[in-house]
Amino acid sequence: MADKLRIGVIGCGTIGTVHAERYSKCAQAELSYVVDLERAKAEKLAASFGAKNVATDYRQILDKVDAVSVCLPNDLHCPVSVEALKAGRHVLCEKPIALNLDQATQMQAEARKAGKLLAIGVVNRFNDYVNLVRSEIASGALGELYHVSFSFKAFRSIPGLGGWFTTRKRSGGGVMIDWGIHYLDLALYCIGSPQPKRISGVAHARLGRNLKEYAYLSMWAGPPNYGGVCDVEEYVSGLLRTSGPTVAFEGAWAQNIDAPATFLDFLGDKGGIRLHYGKGYSLYSHRDGTLYETAPQRTVTDMFQNEIDSFVECALTGAKSRAHVDSVIASQRIIDGFYASAASGREMDL
Amino acid sequence: MADKLRIGVIGCGTIGTVHAERYSKCAQAELSYVVDLERAKAEKLAASFGAKNVATDYRQILDKVDAVSVCLPNDLHCPVSVEALKAGRHVLCEKPIALNLDQATQMQAEARKAGKLLAIGVVNRFNDYVNLVRSEIASGALGELYHVSFSFKAFRSIPGLGGWFTTRKRSGGGVMIDWGIHYLDLALYCIGSPQPKRISGVAHARLGRNLKEYAYLSMWAGPPNYGGVCDVEEYVSGLLRTSGPTVAFEGAWAQNIDAPATFLDFLGDKGGIRLHYGKGYSLYSHRDGTLYETAPQRTVTDMFQNEIDSFVECALTGAKSRAHVDSVIASQRIIDGFYASAASGREMDL
Amino acid sequence: MADKLRIGVIGCGTIGTVHAERYSKCAQAELSYVVDLERAKAEKLAASFGAKNVATDYRQILDKVDAVSVCLPNDLHCPVSVEALKAGRHVLCEKPIALNLDQATQMQAEARKAGKLLAIGVVNRFNDYVNLVRSEIASGALGELYHVSFSFKAFRSIPGLGGWFTTRKRSGGGVMIDWGIHYLDLALYCIGSPQPKRISGVAHARLGRNLKEYAYLSMWAGPPNYGGVCDVEEYVSGLLRTSGPTVAFEGAWAQNIDAPATFLDFLGDKGGIRLHYGKGYSLYSHRDGTLYETAPQRTVTDMFQNEIDSFVECALTGAKSRAHVDSVIASQRIIDGFYASAASGREMDL
Amino acid sequence: MADKLRIGVIGCGTIGTVHAERYSKCAQAELSYVVDLERAKAEKLAASFGAKNVATDYRQILDKVDAVSVCLPNDLHCPVSVEALKAGRHVLCEKPIALNLDQATQMQAEARKAGKLLAIGVVNRFNDYVNLVRSEIASGALGELYHVSFSFKAFRSIPGLGGWFTTRKRSGGGVMIDWGIHYLDLALYCIGSPQPKRISGVAHARLGRNLKEYAYLSMWAGPPNYGGVCDVEEYVSGLLRTSGPTVAFEGAWAQNIDAPATFLDFLGDKGGIRLHYGKGYSLYSHRDGTLYETAPQRTVTDMFQNEIDSFVECALTGAKSRAHVDSVIASQRIIDGFYASAASGREMDL
Repeated sequence: MADKLRIGVIGCGTIGTVHAERYSKCAQAELSYVVDLERAKAEKLAASFGAKNVATDYRQILDKVDAVSVCLPNDLHCPVSVEALKAGRHVLCEKPIALNLDQATQMQAEARKAGKLLAIGVVNRFNDYVNLVRSEIASGALGELYHVSFSFKAFRSIPGLGGWFTTRKRSGGGVMIDWGIHYLDLALYCIGSPQPKRISGVAHARLGRNLKEYAYLSMWAGPPNYGGVCDVEEYVSGLLRTSGPTVAFEGAWAQNIDAPATFLDFLGDKGGIRLHYGKGYSLYSHRDGTLYETAPQRTVTDMFQNEIDSFVECALTGAKSRAHVDSVIASQRIIDGFYASAASGREMDL
Repeated sequence: MADKLRIGVIGCGTIGTVHAERYSKCAQAELSYVVDLERAKAEKLAASFGAKNVATDYRQILDKVDAVSVCLPNDLHCPVSVEALKAGRHVLCEKPIALNLDQATQMQAEARKAGKLLAIGVVNRFNDYVNLVRSEIASGALGELYHVSFSFKAFRSIPGLGGWFTTRKRSGGGVMIDWGIHYLDLALYCIGSPQPKRISGVAHARLGRNLKEYAYLSMWAGPPNYGGVCDVEEYVSGLLRTSGPTVAFEGAWAQNIDAPATFLDFLGDKGGIRLHYGKGYSLYSHRDGTLYETAPQRTVTDMFQNEIDSFVECALTGAKSRAHVDSVIASQRIIDGFYASAASGREMDL
Repeated sequence: MADKLRIGVIGCGTIGTVHAERYSKCAQAELSYVVDLERAKAEKLAASFGAKNVATDYRQILDKVDAVSVCLPNDLHCPVSVEALKAGRHVLCEKPIALNLDQATQMQAEARKAGKLLAIGVVNRFNDYVNLVRSEIASGALGELYHVSFSFKAFRSIPGLGGWFTTRKRSGGGVMIDWGIHYLDLALYCIGSPQPKRISGVAHARLGRNLKEYAYLSMWAGPPNYGGVCDVEEYVSGLLRTSGPTVAFEGAWAQNIDAPATFLDFLGDKGGIRLHYGKGYSLYSHRDGTLYETAPQRTVTDMFQNEIDSFVECALTGAKSRAHVDSVIASQRIIDGFYASAASGREMDL
Repeated sequence: MADKLRIGVIGCGTIGTVHAERYSKCAQAELSYVVDLERAKAEKLAASFGAKNVATDYRQILDKVDAVSVCLPNDLHCPVSVEALKAGRHVLCEKPIALNLDQATQMQAEARKAGKLLAIGVVNRFNDYVNLVRSEIASGALGELYHVSFSFKAFRSIPGLGGWFTTRKRSGGGVMIDWGIHYLDLALYCIGSPQPKRISGVAHARLGRNLKEYAYLSMWAGPPNYGGVCDVEEYVSGLLRTSGPTVAFEGAWAQNIDAPATFLDFLGDKGGIRLHYGKGYSLYSHRDGTLYETAPQRTVTDMFQNEIDSFVECALTGAKSRAHVDSVIASQRIIDGFYASAASGREMDL
């Protein structure tokens, strides 16, 4: 075991910056390389967080690091991760695993073959409040859990209209694969990963398809590229059956109703929890005829730091990662089923 | 055509009282009879609203009135309506039409045979705000409508626990057939009654099944009857595909999360509307890059009076009723499909 | 001591009805008389709640009852209560005590002279949640209390426009004396009745003064009397200094902003409580660096029944009433000071 | 007139960074110097935004620039601004003007004597939504304005506990002089700057005084300095009388109630506006008996850029600045009166 894990961060956009900063604060890691097609972006990131080297082609660094973070558009997750694994590197690949289940399965197989860790950026699993909710559920505080309902709805948040986010062949989909997967993974993680059975879903691509008609207030991953396309859904709704609780969800990058809703409801026969995504939660219970709502708040740790620290630790020690691809692939299967159901207009077996 | 329509109100509970009061204010109606198994209830109602006669058996009045309101538990909707129709009376039957589609179809057939009006108590069709929303949609203000999402969720509102509301053989179901049908009918009415295609639903009967463990703050149609049963669902979620927009919903008589939500979202590609059930609405639009929310409020007419006036008018004149069973039966079909889907754990064709 | 207290309810409007119903359910009371200038109103109320006799002139019943409830417009509180006390009757007078402090003091003096109970309709003192909040504060759960802030704001709720509510010489004022006194009394009751020191207030009478220009959705104590006047304030704001916590408030029967707010915040250096008027509350605390919100809900008793039962009990036994005029007169002093401050545009000593 | 205004930004903290960035984007300005006692902070800022020079003593740059931004703790506003004005430089001084009215008056006098511009960082005057609200009011859309009520309440936001923010001799006060002045200035600006007459205020310093007992979730301008002091108020309430509308406010850096409220209500007799601080607004109106809420949203310009551009333009051309000290000093007078009232427990003439 090396003293420190030599890291290469591939992709210097928003999420690559997040990774680089956390590696720079991780005692067991050495931020050896940051890589971007645009050298200037890589150099700026290197300067900010003390990366030793920069590169513009990830292939050039695979023999100079022990592990890589893949912080690239979704269509590159599979090829870059596979190549890194083939080169014998540990990989932390951002969510979603890949464009679809086929690619994800290929990546999983490659990791097994290489005997290396393939972790996925399901960062909510490293969030303090999420883990508190998971513990409450595991402890039986809610009794038997029978349903989860979650909403990930914004008013005007289509990202980078006309860019890779809204181009299906590069992203694999819209709000479902981008935001929905975070919520879905979080929900399944909290309720003990029941077996998915069937899903019925709808997906609407309406507000962005005529790019210039989309009115917005600000745009993340923007500005819009009016020469590009938007062929992915910005609104979804779905109903998932599992071996355990049923799961319902609705999500919107954008909708013509200004009523953002970003929460997860966990319904049990003794109690319930509403978790505000990225924030705290309320626990509902009753005792002796009195009904209680209790909402604790406290200083939380940085979930991204936790994620990076865990990845480094598991890569160095071989410990099982909480974000191991084996435990994440179920949600990729569900996403695939969701899109198939939306396309066919019928419920799909999973 | 008689000067006035002679009316018999059958059932003197909460909704029977509502009908009787409105008939008493309807110039074209004469409140001839109020009927209840408990004579005292009938007499009290008669005294309050000037009904001329009381009876304890509805069969005794069928030849003395021109029309009846059926304000009885759901299992009596079909037999009593059918008998009244056979006797040649117009019928205003409270929602739901009946316990199931078979009964509803039988009632519809009987009405046709008798050449009499069978109207259903889909009172929201007579609500001013609902009709304003319907007009906005019909006018094209929202552009092409692609999705409707509605919530009918309370925290602690199981009605009459252990009574007929919670006894499947008497009610046909729980929150879906009781509250859901109102929302569903309202939604379909507003969006032009597209053809239902498929539905996937889940129904949970958890919080009321052990009657004494149900903690509540107050109970409508109560108090609880701990000697009775609760074998109907108090939580539902569903996804409906139609020839037009998709429709998603969630509802709860009760849930262990204190976050009531009672609204309908109509999503179009040019605008959207959130209708607060029983209240007003907000219209969302945009023009020249500015996004607008507009919420009008005004004095509204009494939807129950409108419903009764319309029934009386249509019965007297033969005009087509907005609440005619022919236009309501689609929602009964959907409810049947919903329960079949929930029971089988699979999406159902409609 | 009589077996039962013989009661006369004077005034058969909304609040008179509330009193009559509760007396009818009080084992120690006998609802002997209900009185109204309109005999038909009295007779209807008598029929509903089993009052033995009706009268149209309260003077005729003073020697036939042991106690009276004064449920009349504010300008009659003083003369009728004084006359009843002079006749040796116990009096439960609705809030406010009277039009002003002079009248209230006269009533208090008369009660002392007569040796009879003069209780005031400060019904919130009999509300379960209010008493829970009071107990929390008394227990020290909030630490030292330093400020109370309360809001009693509606969007469109001017009552009986053009009637006695909006006619100063009959009401003594508008939203402050009608709603504000409930909140003020409740607040002082919960925090241990500190000595009022100074008050600075503003009162605006804008939205109702041109009666026909007032747009509204519904009107309690309506319909409007366009031949009447509205010369009372519908919006107030004030700042009160006491020997204990400071108190700030804002209230509106109506305002051109649709943001109703009806709550009281109790701020202590260890914790705080937000009480939702007429509903439950949230308690805020912290321990070991974690901040908690806790909101208990439970079945509550009927505060009006509690109020009536207490009045009857105290009248019969001579026990000190929680609503004794001696403990309420401080709020009348504050209301007087508030109006004086609003009229002069200067803070007033109390 | 010079081609470009040579600028020195004095103070490289959060707000100094904001100024420097905007100067770097202002075509008419040249960011000549950034100054901080800590050279490293100055150098980092210079690198980020292309400042030509750095210095650690502002006195060294006064003869090398045309204008300075004073981005220092409140106690340095007066001495540094005065010195810069004496040296013949234009000054943009951050809010509040100074610790108190005496200092502010001295600065104003010095600016007049020097014939230079002294602008204050009342940045909300450069906010698009604020100016839309101001225009609505000026247009008469609300009719006659009679009251303004604003809230600037957070749950846990004491800044830099134990640092200069919470040390009275360095800051001049707590939440009132830090946040309140923004709201107060914004309100007066929107309603046409009526003459202030009297103010009654209360100020509470409870939650921070025992520094280690203050539980918080995060801290801006932190971390806490437990060796310092907190002798400023974190909660305020006040009532201001002017020659025009009355004004009521409440504010909290921290309170033991988790109900943040950051808005301003403008009440007119024809309509009203609720402005969400830093965000958009809702306009309430009525026509023909229908009440409307209308909330427009659109892309807004950067108020900080507007502020800097305006300062530079006015300094170069001599045009009257919207943020001229002459138009801001009234709010400093009110703040002084507020603190005097809070200290004495009595309303103060202004």
